[in-house]
Amino acid sequence: MVLQDRAKATREAIIAGAAAVFEEHGYGSASLTQVSDAAKVTKGALYFHFQSKEDLARAVIEEQHRIVVAESETLLAEDGPALPAMILLCRAFGLKLVHEPAVRAGIRLTLEATAFGPPVQGPYEDWIAVMEQLTDRAKREKQVRSSVDSEALARYLVASFTGVQMVSGVLTGRADVMQRIDEMWSILLPGIMHEDFHEDPQTLSRLVAAEVPIPRGAEVESSA
Amino acid sequence: MVLQDRAKATREAIIAGAAAVFEEHGYGSASLTQVSDAAKVTKGALYFHFQSKEDLARAVIEEQHRIVVAESETLLAEDGPALPAMILLCRAFGLKLVHEPAVRAGIRLTLEATAFGPPVQGPYEDWIAVMEQLTDRAKREKQVRSSVDSEALARYLVASFTGVQMVSGVLTGRADVMQRIDEMWSILLPGIMHEDFHEDPQTLSRLVAAEVPIPRGAEVESSA
Repeated sequence: MVLQDRAKATREAIIAGAAAVFEEHGYGSASLTQVSDAAKVTKGALYFHFQSKEDLARAVIEEQHRIVVAESETLLAEDGPALPAMILLCRAFGLKLVHEPAVRAGIRLTLEATAFGPPVQGPYEDWIAVMEQLTDRAKREKQVRSSVDSEALARYLVASFTGVQMVSGVLTGRADVMQRIDEMWSILLPGIMHEDFHEDPQTLSRLVAAEVPIPRGAEVESSA
Repeated sequence: MVLQDRAKATREAIIAGAAAVFEEHGYGSASLTQVSDAAKVTKGALYFHFQSKEDLARAVIEEQHRIVVAESETLLAEDGPALPAMILLCRAFGLKLVHEPAVRAGIRLTLEATAFGPPVQGPYEDWIAVMEQLTDRAKREKQVRSSVDSEALARYLVASFTGVQMVSGVLTGRADVMQRIDEMWSILLPGIMHEDFHEDPQTLSRLVAAEVPIPRGAEVESSA
């Protein structure tokens, strides 16, 4: 049992080290030596847990997906109104990008996945499905207009969020990612909000923003 | 002169070969041997024109940017109304993604640029500046509401377009990218269009779509 705990801790350290290396260097340029150095484990320990760089990359993507899914399940279990939940989900994902290297690395690897195999579609498809369910609910709850195509909006939200966080990464090292996510919603809301949902888009995103504050120092950390 | 033409042709063949290799393998996994094979030139010819893989990657990014800028200058010179020009610009970029391997490779390399240097910000900044100018004009021409923040919309359009084409790449190999770009505009237009601009968003994007038809076979080619 103690041995099993130690093996688990080593595996987690390797995944964290791999995340740091993949985030900085990308899949192609990353080496297993860099990973064992970053994780402070021997090459032997690394090979005991992972057979190849591809194995490691898949583990980091799984870890990222696990973190994001856990977060969204918590949020969805709370059973509040659907439209604010959609905004919260984007903000929660944004905060994970700021604070969790595994999430940043997983996103990068998902995009680079053609370097080591077929594109990784699962995380996008899962997230689109969650957003589609929420849009359907928001339409029933009269927060989103009935004329909005749920599938199209869900797919666009996921694609557009992906671009917003990536371009924020290129232009500011993700220092402004939370502000850009709020901006995305301010632009989208007037076009999709139900006419009976009397909430000023600016107020709505500020209201939602207030529920998940950006911890102090987030900006500084993410610009590294 | 003839010699100069030949050198130019060789350089172009190398860039085209590099684009094909970078698009398929990404920066880190691509090798100069793959590039000289794809370009059908000797290693000596390759090294005569480019000193390193990084040099090659920068040349592909420049080529991509040149293609997209040339396209947008043609469109902007036509002096039509601003909002349809914004939509046309996105569609034209989408078509370049479908048909020009250098554009696909350049986009991939821009995102992977941290593997070989500081992030490549110029193309994003240039495109945001063009969209901001167009949004200002669309506001003056009463096609876009005056309450819209031009800079915020411009930045969001570029980020959101980036995400739309990337997620289309992951999910369908960009087979559906033109449809997804039109969907993006259908979702955005109701929220940003001026109340005096009596154009149904669906009609507007269809109208614009009709001006830049997707050539036959584009879907098939892009799904490869």
